[in-house]
Amino acid sequence: MLYTRPVSSAVFHRENGALYLERVRLSSLLSSGLETPFFIYSTAQLVSDWQAYAQAVRGIDAVVGYAIKANSNPAILRLLAGFGAGAVVVSDHEVRLALESGFSPARMLLHGNGKRSRDIDAALQAGIILSVDSEFDLEQIAARALAHKTKAKLLLRVNPDIDPQVHPYISTGLLDSKFGFSEAAVERTRQRLQSLPSVEVRGLHCHLGSTLKTVQPVRDAARLLATLVLALRSDGHPIDILDMGGGLGIDYSRGLEQLPIPDELTLAVSPVLRELGLRLFLEPGRSLVGRAGALIGRVLGVKDNGRKHFIVTDASMAQLIRPCLYGAYHHIDLLDESVAGPSLIFDVVGPICESGDFLGQSRQLPTPRAGDGLIVYDAGAYGFAMASRYNLHLGCAEYLVDGQSIRRVRRAETFDDLSRTFSDEPISL
Amino acid sequence: MLYTRPVSSAVFHRENGALYLERVRLSSLLSSGLETPFFIYSTAQLVSDWQAYAQAVRGIDAVVGYAIKANSNPAILRLLAGFGAGAVVVSDHEVRLALESGFSPARMLLHGNGKRSRDIDAALQAGIILSVDSEFDLEQIAARALAHKTKAKLLLRVNPDIDPQVHPYISTGLLDSKFGFSEAAVERTRQRLQSLPSVEVRGLHCHLGSTLKTVQPVRDAARLLATLVLALRSDGHPIDILDMGGGLGIDYSRGLEQLPIPDELTLAVSPVLRELGLRLFLEPGRSLVGRAGALIGRVLGVKDNGRKHFIVTDASMAQLIRPCLYGAYHHIDLLDESVAGPSLIFDVVGPICESGDFLGQSRQLPTPRAGDGLIVYDAGAYGFAMASRYNLHLGCAEYLVDGQSIRRVRRAETFDDLSRTFSDEPISL
Repeated sequence: MLYTRPVSSAVFHRENGALYLERVRLSSLLSSGLETPFFIYSTAQLVSDWQAYAQAVRGIDAVVGYAIKANSNPAILRLLAGFGAGAVVVSDHEVRLALESGFSPARMLLHGNGKRSRDIDAALQAGIILSVDSEFDLEQIAARALAHKTKAKLLLRVNPDIDPQVHPYISTGLLDSKFGFSEAAVERTRQRLQSLPSVEVRGLHCHLGSTLKTVQPVRDAARLLATLVLALRSDGHPIDILDMGGGLGIDYSRGLEQLPIPDELTLAVSPVLRELGLRLFLEPGRSLVGRAGALIGRVLGVKDNGRKHFIVTDASMAQLIRPCLYGAYHHIDLLDESVAGPSLIFDVVGPICESGDFLGQSRQLPTPRAGDGLIVYDAGAYGFAMASRYNLHLGCAEYLVDGQSIRRVRRAETFDDLSRTFSDEPISL
Repeated sequence: MLYTRPVSSAVFHRENGALYLERVRLSSLLSSGLETPFFIYSTAQLVSDWQAYAQAVRGIDAVVGYAIKANSNPAILRLLAGFGAGAVVVSDHEVRLALESGFSPARMLLHGNGKRSRDIDAALQAGIILSVDSEFDLEQIAARALAHKTKAKLLLRVNPDIDPQVHPYISTGLLDSKFGFSEAAVERTRQRLQSLPSVEVRGLHCHLGSTLKTVQPVRDAARLLATLVLALRSDGHPIDILDMGGGLGIDYSRGLEQLPIPDELTLAVSPVLRELGLRLFLEPGRSLVGRAGALIGRVLGVKDNGRKHFIVTDASMAQLIRPCLYGAYHHIDLLDESVAGPSLIFDVVGPICESGDFLGQSRQLPTPRAGDGLIVYDAGAYGFAMASRYNLHLGCAEYLVDGQSIRRVRRAETFDDLSRTFSDEPISL
């Protein structure tokens, strides 16, 4: 059982029991009639988490490339592009969105273990680097580059077979994982590369997994990649990039965990960078935007079935599937404590017709009334990005706070957004 | 390790190694240039699965109410409405879609452990029965009915505390679950109902869970509800409906399992129906549409990392999250066996940047070439319905086969569908 503790930071604070995000009293959003649920983001938190990376790469030749799959709201993309971030993208639509949001192609990179032609073409047209994941991926990129009459700049994604000790679904650097070249495949590929004039290997990449609790695996992986850099340089490849991926965790428990910070990450790899004269590429996603976002819902009611107490909210797995999918913990609290009743142990559940629709289990919380606001913290990463329309709970709105200003940065979907893809027309083969 | 066995049925069959759905050679859809991935549905399978229910309720006063959350493609809804099915809905948008698709309000029912005002209002306006889930839900429905100057017809959802022995996320009839009234809550509610003139209890409901392997728990639950029917009738409520929910499983393993059929379900409850003169309401979802649908993808490539073989496809957890979310097994096969290479043990994975993105693990399959088609069976239920836009892999198309005819019943989403909800406007409180 995880008890709920008060959250305090420069970004979130309470006044007379009411929760503020920067200078916005969150419950006032509900009382002013905003439709729930919605995601809300803090510019101040985003700035602060960006600065931790900016500080960590001071004096280092580095690109901090935001992994936009974590959250591709255009307002967040524009902010990060403005800060000087690069962008790590994984599909043609992400390439387009990143370019339209102001990211420079020189600071972009396309990933993917299963790139479709449309993804490869979008990257080649934009002139961005591609991370190559496998031998078949290399062949397809080389063929598309030939067709485009261009030379594809590549990073070779290496699977270092190092255990990051995180949830299996977000662990990516073990040979059981679908990602990257094994050492044996790298050896086979060194030879093959000699006969592919349409590609140029510019660097090496590995990504160990998400929510890393220590940087030791990153240090080990950098050493392993250093050996490969020398080997590929001896083959004549102009290797100047070392991409150590992303993976820094955030403290979802809000106070219980000590997690590595970007400074430790760069410290872990800087010896290798200096020795080999490499440019560093980092790919933070969660640690750049996770803390900056929260999911806000309204309490629909409180229920006691004799064995358990439930808080039923209109926020659900349709907006935030992480608790259900990974058993992930997100800190949950009421927006306004002053009006709440006795403290009990609750399961916090959504309205989706499925038992897996919970946001938190066994949480000690004051008893809310119907209509009260509730916050699910640290939902800035892999929240909206993984949302569904399950039960026809359509896409929700998103808001961005900056001081006392609030901007709506995505509107909620309507029935018309759903029905516009309905079709009924014959296909002839 | 689950080996792949050939699938044969009237609906799917092979000719010279090529897989046909009814009279359509599936690989011809790919060679004609249809964008993958997509869902494809069989009218013949839908008819056959409907007929199993129609047959099971012959001579019984019954409504077979399709749980449209399983798959709300309008073409499927129109077919089922045309067969005479009712509709079980769980949100305002589902109410609207069901009505627009031709379901009669007299054969509809709104469910939900967390009904929002908009859901209740939609149901009251349409004049459909509501299943009431909890004491707070009852109060809110009664209040909304009063506001609408109408009388709400209710089913009382009872949590029978019976273990259906299925995956915890789809088990709904235990007291650990968020659904329904406990026996104690029913007792409290009997009294409260006397002072709520805007509601009328017309029946009892329970739903034990999905993918039931035996009907014994349904038989037990019907007996338990029978006692409550008598109690509520003695309070003066005109109870004439017994809603036993849905929950029949389908044989995802395609040949390994013997599962209960609708006939067994009605046989299990018919003694109670006869004794008490009740109309039966059934709520099949999966068992009506699960088998009728498949997810079709293209192979992007085959990969060997020294420890495992992978087939990488463009179909993914973005379209079908069940393998990742529940560890669910879906049978997987190649569309065309005649062109395939040596048989190996593969993980079948998608292109999403996450290790959880797999469709099947340790499957014995012939080695395909890039571009070959692949089928994931039994994806008609909880496939598209739970789809996301993760990695900006946007909503895919859906097709409906009937004999040799093919209709596109949903078009794939475009970048414009994504960007039309982008917004950037100040909110003033």
